[in-house]
Amino acid sequence: MRCEVVAVGTELLLGQVIDTNSAVIGERLAASGIDSYLQVKVGDNLERATAAVQRALARADAVIVCGGLGPTHDDITRSVLARVMGVALVRDEALVDVISAMFANRGRTMAANNLLQADVPEGAIVIPQTRGTAPGLICPIATAGDDGSPVTKVVYAIPGVPHEMVEMLDRAVLPDLRARQGGSVAIVSRTLRTWGETESGLAEHLAGPIADLEESGAATIAFLASGVEGIKVRVTAKADDIGAARRAVDAVADELRAELGWTVFGEDDATMESVVLDLLRAREQSLAVAESMTGGMITSRLTDVPGSSEVLRGGVVSYATEVKHRLLGVPEGPVISADTAMAMATGVRRLLDADVGLAITGVAGPARQEGEPPGTVFVGWDVAGEVRSRKLALFGDRARIRAYGTISALDVLRRALLGIDGD
Amino acid sequence: MRCEVVAVGTELLLGQVIDTNSAVIGERLAASGIDSYLQVKVGDNLERATAAVQRALARADAVIVCGGLGPTHDDITRSVLARVMGVALVRDEALVDVISAMFANRGRTMAANNLLQADVPEGAIVIPQTRGTAPGLICPIATAGDDGSPVTKVVYAIPGVPHEMVEMLDRAVLPDLRARQGGSVAIVSRTLRTWGETESGLAEHLAGPIADLEESGAATIAFLASGVEGIKVRVTAKADDIGAARRAVDAVADELRAELGWTVFGEDDATMESVVLDLLRAREQSLAVAESMTGGMITSRLTDVPGSSEVLRGGVVSYATEVKHRLLGVPEGPVISADTAMAMATGVRRLLDADVGLAITGVAGPARQEGEPPGTVFVGWDVAGEVRSRKLALFGDRARIRAYGTISALDVLRRALLGIDGD
Repeated sequence: MRCEVVAVGTELLLGQVIDTNSAVIGERLAASGIDSYLQVKVGDNLERATAAVQRALARADAVIVCGGLGPTHDDITRSVLARVMGVALVRDEALVDVISAMFANRGRTMAANNLLQADVPEGAIVIPQTRGTAPGLICPIATAGDDGSPVTKVVYAIPGVPHEMVEMLDRAVLPDLRARQGGSVAIVSRTLRTWGETESGLAEHLAGPIADLEESGAATIAFLASGVEGIKVRVTAKADDIGAARRAVDAVADELRAELGWTVFGEDDATMESVVLDLLRAREQSLAVAESMTGGMITSRLTDVPGSSEVLRGGVVSYATEVKHRLLGVPEGPVISADTAMAMATGVRRLLDADVGLAITGVAGPARQEGEPPGTVFVGWDVAGEVRSRKLALFGDRARIRAYGTISALDVLRRALLGIDGD
Repeated sequence: MRCEVVAVGTELLLGQVIDTNSAVIGERLAASGIDSYLQVKVGDNLERATAAVQRALARADAVIVCGGLGPTHDDITRSVLARVMGVALVRDEALVDVISAMFANRGRTMAANNLLQADVPEGAIVIPQTRGTAPGLICPIATAGDDGSPVTKVVYAIPGVPHEMVEMLDRAVLPDLRARQGGSVAIVSRTLRTWGETESGLAEHLAGPIADLEESGAATIAFLASGVEGIKVRVTAKADDIGAARRAVDAVADELRAELGWTVFGEDDATMESVVLDLLRAREQSLAVAESMTGGMITSRLTDVPGSSEVLRGGVVSYATEVKHRLLGVPEGPVISADTAMAMATGVRRLLDADVGLAITGVAGPARQEGEPPGTVFVGWDVAGEVRSRKLALFGDRARIRAYGTISALDVLRRALLGIDGD
């Protein structure tokens, strides 16, 4: 089955807003075993958007149109779909009630144009809204197949606001697409999150299981390089029922996890920071962080996680050398060094009265520092008085070195807490 | 003139990599007065990518193909362009020498497949590479216009690595496009960066100048809503020579700046953090930051700027309440308060021996804290002993409140340093 994506919005073409929706849709279509060969961005122009949807529909079995469902006259997707279906827009009175009630509940007066969102192309099925005011649409389109026989294709319309989009995609669009794709096939995925290995290194490690799977067809494996979030290894299986699919995925994923060992830091929605916080929470240990070259990026990643305050006491950004000496008690000497990283870890642990200290010092660039090239990084940690360090050699520009230094330091701590010696 | 964009890469369709390149290209095309009505993502498939470029070329005067110029067999853009032009690929010996020399200079051995990057469609013009190994291409295409007369269109190929892409776009593609667009027209833009006003508020403020411009046509104004980076107000003028265009832009931009006052924090590539650092550097004052709900995001934004170490001494992430009391000397009492923000600012200024202290405390959510709803934020500052605070009411989810709190706190400090009273 083929599904194209049309993102609607002049702001996307002008670069005022980055179109992340298509990427999210593409990732989820792939996980459902649906091919997406082309994705298009088009502006808020009725003629051009209609033509874009018609061309997509000629090539694919299904089209997801994203955006243009709001209440203003710029929001043209409902009209586009009515044109593509060759029908009129009619006002859905049930939707009028829902939208009016939503405004009343929030104690806000409703501008009349909000009721444009209750207009529906005749014959379209409404996807109820749960997060915003814009309902989605499922529009069946009768076409002729290559041999002239009747074929029903489908166009979906979903909102452009990312969190509304993804909720409606998962709740209504993907289940409908999967149902159209082939009766009762169940698809289950599990994603292993890895850090510290290259894609080719992972593939080499897993050559045996991959060869077995190619023969048995029990599941498929995909490597998703995700930059500073590491490489995801996704295992997907299809089966007649969800139990069988889950068993197939679990058998393979468990085998890969055993094979990859400490390289896997978590699964599915786990992040490096959530994993580190969970480990510390389980050990009932608190954390303090001292950062030099990352300038607060480690604590800001940790505090992205709701509930991090149970574990994280705080941090010190010791950017100036004197701050390292005076506040953290780092002895005089070169600051780009293992000794400094360890002294910072101990210093911040004591200063903030935490069980565990984590520290990073290094050269982010663009210039050398103390004769060391950009990318020279030392991570130090102090777990209840046991102090160690590790040297990293990162490459890339300042932004990349800072971002990789951040996740690498968290990974170093993760491995220390798990008692893994690493390399 | 119309220019479409085709981004090539299966990783873009699968959502492994977000296509930011098309957005950057779209923004720059708009700034050059070139229309971009459609942008497409297509995978690394010779047939489908060729068809996508051909369709784009049928609709537009020019097409920019982004990505697929690397050295592997997945990199199909050169072959796509040879097909579209109806010519063969030939190896360019001058390019062979350049690529070989680049590897020799870096002391790396060159795998033979790197020379695939020296293959050029016959009749294409090479854009020399300055940052990577992949040269770009300018491919003139002879077609027939609507009336059957010969028309020359053009396809550009540029690399997919963002910093290589943008360098080649600015250096070679946009000048070539502008030359094709219309002789010696010069286009100049100036962008005012604003924070603290809504788009409709800005438009209301500027209603007078905008009405004047609509009459005179001396320049155009565009509002670019850029989320946590504020709203950009871009002034663009076209003229026969660059001096006249620059004078027209300057006259308008200076007028708008005067009208908008302190809402404008900088111009063009300036960021809130670079502006704050520049202000402090000019005053020869050092900075220390204490963060609670932003957990290090303020210092990490500041340390994104190379050379920030001349100004920023460091920061304290006082996530746990006891850290606020013990380390920063905040008195007992509610921590979501103006008094705490001010005490944090003074505390961190003294602790890190800085001239200026900036502090933020508040509720990021999802839960209430001390009875206050998410979005309640207090910013405190201490400029050489003069201590003040400001309360902000932000909305949105945890990530948005943290991000907006970060830039808002920097803006509060900017205004304090400039002696602007704000609201």
